[in-house]
Amino acid sequence: MAGNDVTDLVERARKGDPRAVARLISHVEDGSPLLREVMAALTPYAGGAYVVGLTGSPGVGKSTSTSALVTAFRTQGKRVGVLAVDPSSPFSGGALLGDRVRMQEHATDRDVYIRSMASRGHLGGLSASTPQAVRVLDAAGCDVVLIETVGVGQSEVEIAATADTSVVLLAPGMGDGIQAAKAGILEIGDLFVVNKADRDGADATARELGHMLALGESRSPGDWRPPIVKTVAATGQGIEEFVEALDKHKSWLEENGQLDERRRYRASVEIEGIALAALRARIGDLHGDRRLSVLAERVVGRELDPYSAADELVAGVSD
Amino acid sequence: MAGNDVTDLVERARKGDPRAVARLISHVEDGSPLLREVMAALTPYAGGAYVVGLTGSPGVGKSTSTSALVTAFRTQGKRVGVLAVDPSSPFSGGALLGDRVRMQEHATDRDVYIRSMASRGHLGGLSASTPQAVRVLDAAGCDVVLIETVGVGQSEVEIAATADTSVVLLAPGMGDGIQAAKAGILEIGDLFVVNKADRDGADATARELGHMLALGESRSPGDWRPPIVKTVAATGQGIEEFVEALDKHKSWLEENGQLDERRRYRASVEIEGIALAALRARIGDLHGDRRLSVLAERVVGRELDPYSAADELVAGVSD
Repeated sequence: MAGNDVTDLVERARKGDPRAVARLISHVEDGSPLLREVMAALTPYAGGAYVVGLTGSPGVGKSTSTSALVTAFRTQGKRVGVLAVDPSSPFSGGALLGDRVRMQEHATDRDVYIRSMASRGHLGGLSASTPQAVRVLDAAGCDVVLIETVGVGQSEVEIAATADTSVVLLAPGMGDGIQAAKAGILEIGDLFVVNKADRDGADATARELGHMLALGESRSPGDWRPPIVKTVAATGQGIEEFVEALDKHKSWLEENGQLDERRRYRASVEIEGIALAALRARIGDLHGDRRLSVLAERVVGRELDPYSAADELVAGVSD
Repeated sequence: MAGNDVTDLVERARKGDPRAVARLISHVEDGSPLLREVMAALTPYAGGAYVVGLTGSPGVGKSTSTSALVTAFRTQGKRVGVLAVDPSSPFSGGALLGDRVRMQEHATDRDVYIRSMASRGHLGGLSASTPQAVRVLDAAGCDVVLIETVGVGQSEVEIAATADTSVVLLAPGMGDGIQAAKAGILEIGDLFVVNKADRDGADATARELGHMLALGESRSPGDWRPPIVKTVAATGQGIEEFVEALDKHKSWLEENGQLDERRRYRASVEIEGIALAALRARIGDLHGDRRLSVLAERVVGRELDPYSAADELVAGVSD
């Protein structure tokens, strides 16, 4: 594919051609050699989308909630992109759609883009690729981009933290309070949603969460205080309040210069990911994998300590 | 702490002082400035330990199984180290012991070292720090080191893959077949254990697993065929077979030159982690975080595409 084809693909994506959008995201996912060109072509058109990260343990109803949000934003006439990021799939190379059946109802809506992305385990891959996929959807004219991740590990927390607004979903009776603390997601939540609020224990979960948030609090006046919203996403109950809470947070971000701050953070995660991948490639180009094997052998043979081995590996980068 | 103190600490660790071992692992976990010196001092004494990685979803009985293995190895008079790695704890800085109560029975045994490690989310941190903590326990005279991780994400799979033998634990009726395929752990398992084998569905789980392993198979004669062992770790049932299967795999590794191969892999993961952390630090030293912020701002402002920004960030490394 030549340069003009990238320009053409970007033009078609901007006109709302879903296949063009899909191909651009494939460039991101595959770490295509044209990715650089693709990102350069998209950059002038990005910046309009409001990016919401949704994270939570399996079973809290992330897909149902995401789908309910899509419906709400579509009612407002907005174009919506959904990225379901599945970092737990390092080998299979293609996220399983599994429980994303709920999303089917939007499958025929041309103003909704839905994409599952697996992380390929490349260094900088996960951290750089999510902002890049967001840029595709953003430049393609999405007003809102929803990033859905399973919040079980550090990588997922990091993805959610690159959004403009990070939503943490919980459900009653899953020991989520402790889970939340463990995964560090209390720190990143701008908004907490207790879904399945028609179940026993919903109030207790919301209360426990409120206590934990209060415990961790060291806020100044004017700081954002993360609200707790109760929803039953399957019936739509509470979704209006959910969307209102998102609107409020977005307004707060804009009024306090935080929206640009978050976007700079997202860009810096991306830039650093690309830079480190480039440095890693440079190590590989200089030495080949054989060089690393030889060094590893010397460490195993106790001739060399691992730091001296790393020095030798890095040395050539400065040449 | 001066250089002589590192030497002293290493000497004490080699004599079996648990506090010295604990302090050495803290250097690893904290990314201490003395880490380089610590690793250099440990390197001559490492290489004797057999390293077993255990991974599986929450609830399969990893801690109970690990504890049962510790008991079995202690009966053989072996010194045992246990690393419980919890990569889901990026912020709290200290792994929660939670369900590790089972380990308490070994708490007073001076020939058993048990350590929970949280990943700090530093680049190269998780990948480099596990081999480094293994080196501490190895040099301190452990015959066996068990690395226990929750197998839910890519990082955990990577940790398990740095062991001499990787054990994947499953339990009946948890949809583990699909989970295993998803997390890519079928590829890394040298040995599969269906724990809680007294429960309904244990045979079905073992059978389903056997089918999945057969499906993915493209082995030559002489290749290792991962066995499936059924255990009830809580009662000790099947633990003898589990240990025998580990012995068999260790012998196979030795006879086929694979033990050194695995150790070279572990060392190369460590070396690369250190090298990348050094390169990242060099970017930071050259430019400071402000440089990255300025570049991120230009990307957000659509003046610069992220790849050109990464080029500028990397440029100084070559000077």
